[in-house]
Amino acid sequence: MSRTIEVCLTPALLHLYAIEKSIVVVIDILRATSSITYGLENGAKAIIPVAHVEDCLKYSNMGYLLAAERNGEVVEGYDFGNSPFSYTKEKVEGKTIVLTTTNGTKAMHMAQKSAHQVVVGSFLNLTSLCNWLREQDKNVLLLCAGWKDQFNLEDTLFAGAVVNILRKDFMHFDDSCVAAEDMYLLAKDDIRTYLRKSSHSHRLEQLNIEEDVKFCLKRDVCKVIPVFLKDSIVALI
Amino acid sequence: MSRTIEVCLTPALLHLYAIEKSIVVVIDILRATSSITYGLENGAKAIIPVAHVEDCLKYSNMGYLLAAERNGEVVEGYDFGNSPFSYTKEKVEGKTIVLTTTNGTKAMHMAQKSAHQVVVGSFLNLTSLCNWLREQDKNVLLLCAGWKDQFNLEDTLFAGAVVNILRKDFMHFDDSCVAAEDMYLLAKDDIRTYLRKSSHSHRLEQLNIEEDVKFCLKRDVCKVIPVFLKDSIVALI
Repeated sequence: MSRTIEVCLTPALLHLYAIEKSIVVVIDILRATSSITYGLENGAKAIIPVAHVEDCLKYSNMGYLLAAERNGEVVEGYDFGNSPFSYTKEKVEGKTIVLTTTNGTKAMHMAQKSAHQVVVGSFLNLTSLCNWLREQDKNVLLLCAGWKDQFNLEDTLFAGAVVNILRKDFMHFDDSCVAAEDMYLLAKDDIRTYLRKSSHSHRLEQLNIEEDVKFCLKRDVCKVIPVFLKDSIVALI
Repeated sequence: MSRTIEVCLTPALLHLYAIEKSIVVVIDILRATSSITYGLENGAKAIIPVAHVEDCLKYSNMGYLLAAERNGEVVEGYDFGNSPFSYTKEKVEGKTIVLTTTNGTKAMHMAQKSAHQVVVGSFLNLTSLCNWLREQDKNVLLLCAGWKDQFNLEDTLFAGAVVNILRKDFMHFDDSCVAAEDMYLLAKDDIRTYLRKSSHSHRLEQLNIEEDVKFCLKRDVCKVIPVFLKDSIVALI
């Protein structure tokens, strides 16, 4: 089959793509899709993404762990924030987690409306994800969650990494693929340093999440393929 | 003043930018903004951009030159197509031209709704445009016309060239600026070859406009700053 791989640079452009027969990979590297990947790898039963801290509330008293952060601090009364370090085996094994993530949730829900299948990607499961995509015989859309519908560097770099790995297995690439792959090739030897060029680099530094950022850029710590089914993300078996 | 320069990668993202106090540079390298620049440099009185061949019709019998193309051929009954080579001094001096360009017209009209000022950029007037932008003491948004709202390489590379030239004069850059500039730095020594990576490279070849493409990538053939006023583009005096 002559397969297509494309990169959608922000959710605001998703309507331009025909995804009914495609696998959509949602990418929100800092930090939603990284934490989701790590949590499921560590045995979380399911992760429910919600857009706002307030949306977490309806899941209170259901035995779920609630994860919500504002300005880099865990919201009072919640179990933890968005740091991937909260998603260790000790904390999440067998648990369902409700995770607050504005950009990631929006992208996942938008994709789910019409995509054949929605999965989650991060550097943590890069190789495993690419191996799986290679085997599926489907078109692939790499959907960057971005920042409030704006293009961002880190999600695009990850999309570029996937394009670079899968190049031989796909026939058709759009211009966004070319751009993402070339940016990735420029940045790949030190992605952390490249991201200091980012417009929100200063914001990230203020959030005091440097260790989180470094962790989210580690490759192949996980093998799990997180798949979005109905309203929750689970490990594909 | 602490000025901002940003790159809007497609018109579908324009709503994300506050442009009330900004100069918007509309970019449609192949071939609308290149032909517009060249035509005004060569003494055209004004160029009226319209979105569809049919829109040209209402300008019939007004003494205007009508430019319309379908599949790379001049539409029957029209004066010429979209090749910049049609916009020579002999053909356009003192004339008003109605030019059909779907992506460029859309971008110009969208920007005009709220921008402080809308001008037109192309490699043909790159240095002149940058010198002028430097002197204006305004924020700048570089608006890539793209292809049917999709991201494209050639418009982004031009935006990157502008960012590269103006970097010292502006304080704030968004992630799209970083991406566009890095792509430009990768491609700058041979932009024509870089564009062969493009998804519509094959389409361009079929249109048999190779000489047009090469001309549209020439730098600093023109000094004019084309400015969009009401419904027509004129040379800024």
